[in-house]
Amino acid sequence: MSDKIKENSKKYNLHSWSAQGKLNPTVVTDAKGIYFWDDKGNKYFDMSSQLVNMNIGHGNKKVIEAIKFQADKLTYIAPGYAIDVKSELAEKIIEIAPDNMGKVFFTLGGTDANENAIKIAKMYTGRNKVFSRYRSYHGSTYGSANLTGEPRRYVSEPGIPGFIKFFDPYIYRESIAFNSEEEATVFYLAKLREQIVYENSTTVAAIFLETVTGSNGVIIPPKGYLKGIRDICDEFGIMMVCDEVMCGYGRTGTWFACDNWDVKPDMITFAKGITCGYVPLGGVLVSKDIAGFFNDNPLMCGLTYSGHPIGCAAGLATLEVYKEEKLIENSKSMGKVLGEELEILKTKHKSVGDVRYIGLFSSIELIKNTVTREALVPYGKDPEGIMGKILGMLKEKGFSTYTHENIIIVAPPLIIKEEEIKEAMAIMDEVLDYVDSLVVED
Amino acid sequence: MSDKIKENSKKYNLHSWSAQGKLNPTVVTDAKGIYFWDDKGNKYFDMSSQLVNMNIGHGNKKVIEAIKFQADKLTYIAPGYAIDVKSELAEKIIEIAPDNMGKVFFTLGGTDANENAIKIAKMYTGRNKVFSRYRSYHGSTYGSANLTGEPRRYVSEPGIPGFIKFFDPYIYRESIAFNSEEEATVFYLAKLREQIVYENSTTVAAIFLETVTGSNGVIIPPKGYLKGIRDICDEFGIMMVCDEVMCGYGRTGTWFACDNWDVKPDMITFAKGITCGYVPLGGVLVSKDIAGFFNDNPLMCGLTYSGHPIGCAAGLATLEVYKEEKLIENSKSMGKVLGEELEILKTKHKSVGDVRYIGLFSSIELIKNTVTREALVPYGKDPEGIMGKILGMLKEKGFSTYTHENIIIVAPPLIIKEEEIKEAMAIMDEVLDYVDSLVVED
Ligand SMILES: Cc1ncc(COP(=O)(O)O)c(C=O)c1O
Ligand SMILES: Cc1ncc(COP(=O)(O)O)c(C=O)c1O
Repeated sequence: MSDKIKENSKKYNLHSWSAQGKLNPTVVTDAKGIYFWDDKGNKYFDMSSQLVNMNIGHGNKKVIEAIKFQADKLTYIAPGYAIDVKSELAEKIIEIAPDNMGKVFFTLGGTDANENAIKIAKMYTGRNKVFSRYRSYHGSTYGSANLTGEPRRYVSEPGIPGFIKFFDPYIYRESIAFNSEEEATVFYLAKLREQIVYENSTTVAAIFLETVTGSNGVIIPPKGYLKGIRDICDEFGIMMVCDEVMCGYGRTGTWFACDNWDVKPDMITFAKGITCGYVPLGGVLVSKDIAGFFNDNPLMCGLTYSGHPIGCAAGLATLEVYKEEKLIENSKSMGKVLGEELEILKTKHKSVGDVRYIGLFSSIELIKNTVTREALVPYGKDPEGIMGKILGMLKEKGFSTYTHENIIIVAPPLIIKEEEIKEAMAIMDEVLDYVDSLVVED
Repeated sequence: MSDKIKENSKKYNLHSWSAQGKLNPTVVTDAKGIYFWDDKGNKYFDMSSQLVNMNIGHGNKKVIEAIKFQADKLTYIAPGYAIDVKSELAEKIIEIAPDNMGKVFFTLGGTDANENAIKIAKMYTGRNKVFSRYRSYHGSTYGSANLTGEPRRYVSEPGIPGFIKFFDPYIYRESIAFNSEEEATVFYLAKLREQIVYENSTTVAAIFLETVTGSNGVIIPPKGYLKGIRDICDEFGIMMVCDEVMCGYGRTGTWFACDNWDVKPDMITFAKGITCGYVPLGGVLVSKDIAGFFNDNPLMCGLTYSGHPIGCAAGLATLEVYKEEKLIENSKSMGKVLGEELEILKTKHKSVGDVRYIGLFSSIELIKNTVTREALVPYGKDPEGIMGKILGMLKEKGFSTYTHENIIIVAPPLIIKEEEIKEAMAIMDEVLDYVDSLVVED
């Protein structure tokens, strides 16, 4: 039976981001809380919450019941109609969002959330150019892929005219050393401001940024950076759009990541954590100003499944779970525990160049030279399959996660407990012993 | 309660394709079979199957049970894993698809299906240009919006380089008169072939077309047209991509619309009918050749919710419903009934310029001058709100559908019975009496 599943999956399914011939997909049969099981009965700590979306963990009864209830009640109605769960979910999201936010446009996932934010920014400002950063992933459809800076963009090129890139504040790998976070902030903001001026500030509709850069390595903005972006946007009448698809809904220890720095973007895009993947749902939060603009101007956005009833029902239940189980708070307190564990690993293992963490969102950056900080694998390639081997060793020992370049992502469900973090990170500790053996000099 | 739903919907939801200030969304509380009900207890014939997606009708128990079962079993797992329902659904789709099809990549809806098809065509051919037609809608994200020819494209411009448009075989409004369908086919194909040559055929990756153009007015290809497109694609090594998001899954009386003309595209994109909207799901069917190419070449496509377990479970149940309830056959036989009704209306009402129908997919094109065929409302505008008024009159009498320019779409669920078609079309008949009064000359 499970052989047949795997065989048919190789025969009939196209799997993401890979050559299909070499794939040997694990068959998953069950999942509960912070764990999932394969068809051989192996149990895994889900230390990346799948694709950093299962914030409330697997198999949550409350959300499952909400899905079942809505399935019986009303499965689908076109987006033009008003329905209870769609109205209510939008209201509840506005309640927890920064207080300048006014309305929600619902999508199915993250990429279409960003697509719609691009269009909204262009309609609202009447401008055309869009800024985003190199170390970023915003989705795989053309617009979001053109926002994306990393290589997953290339297949969507030649690009859309007017999509401009700037560099993230990636202090650990900058060629100049900063004396303080503040100094770094001054540098990055000055460069960005200069670039906006050179691109003709009056043509720039929006700056898109992951509030905390996610799959490209959990890059956390230095002090004052986001506030500075807000000021630049205000100076030039540019929309500040925070992509919180990955970092929103408690991941960083606050409802939205921008809350950590008290910054109010003009739009926030979200997906993942709003339903934790129980049903596909995403969306764009727009400010009251933007919402008001579309009272008289047509909103040229639409999706057959915008505001899907079952998605909205799951979203409502998910928000209740965050509140009832105090998961935002847990993300913050368990984030401290995780941070301490990571600092210990960094001290102990010479292969660990940097650890970055905020809430339960963290990464371990692996190096092969402690002096030059040379990355464990060269950028964009891993000819010896080293990162794959590390992932395999972790998985073998029951620690499931994913990597990006020379970086391991650690982002467990927000329901994780202290003992569980310690148990899982002990596995990481063991595997890092092996990685240390790859460090060539120190 | 229901006032609160509407009020909150206006306050917090952004609704598609419209200025929000004037909206007064109907609150929907229930739906069953071919009907739905608003909060005032009014009952409507769902004569457009919502957005031409509820092929099996509302509230189907089998699909609801499948959703509930899967919700209990496994709500989400990342696309990299193999799971039973994802393998099985792909297999079942391949079974009913043209026999050259090999694998499926799952998406959430129609727009991302087309986005991924664009990327796959580019990767497979190593070419960059993409052809599509003016009278078309392929979705609202940048790539699909740039495939789209009609005005919903404009907000996604300046466009992506290399997206080229050609004209649909819209015989009713062509400035020259053809003596036969075959003559029209020769004309349109010659024009397309010429354009491909002028664009440099060796740079063209794909031709996208709705097998039967849907929301732009149900435009049915003349005899030999699709076969001719296939030949042109073969001649120049271009991928033929049929967008069957709206016309697939029985809508035209066959599983896929291309089956009507025995044509085998290289890719078919789908959404809507695969789950009928019970849970969001879409996908790209690729030929065995294309599937084989990606054994060694990485497929640069990915979505957090690709192959979502609940979507796949709903899709499997939906396919069973089509088979058990013989809906493909019903679409064909009831399509005959609907066609006869439409022909009667055309004879009877001078405001009806043209009726077009295939299976349960049809349209009524309204004119205000029987000699010149002048459209009832000018292209791209309806200053007096005439089409809105017609829709309102239909709705008032219990006939729910939507319009595009001067065209009314009629596409009921495939479960509809003969008496029901007659009962609903009697309402249309009444309303067309009013429309006749708007005809200025004859
Ligand atoms: C920051 C960010 N934005 C957008 C996306 C795209 O979301 P989706 O895969 O749901 O389209 C992702 C996915 O990982 C993401 O991390
Ligand atoms: C032919 C066609 N393609 C694509 C789409 C886009 O599908 P979705 O709204 O699910 O993105 C539609 C939607 O109506 C369609 O009719």
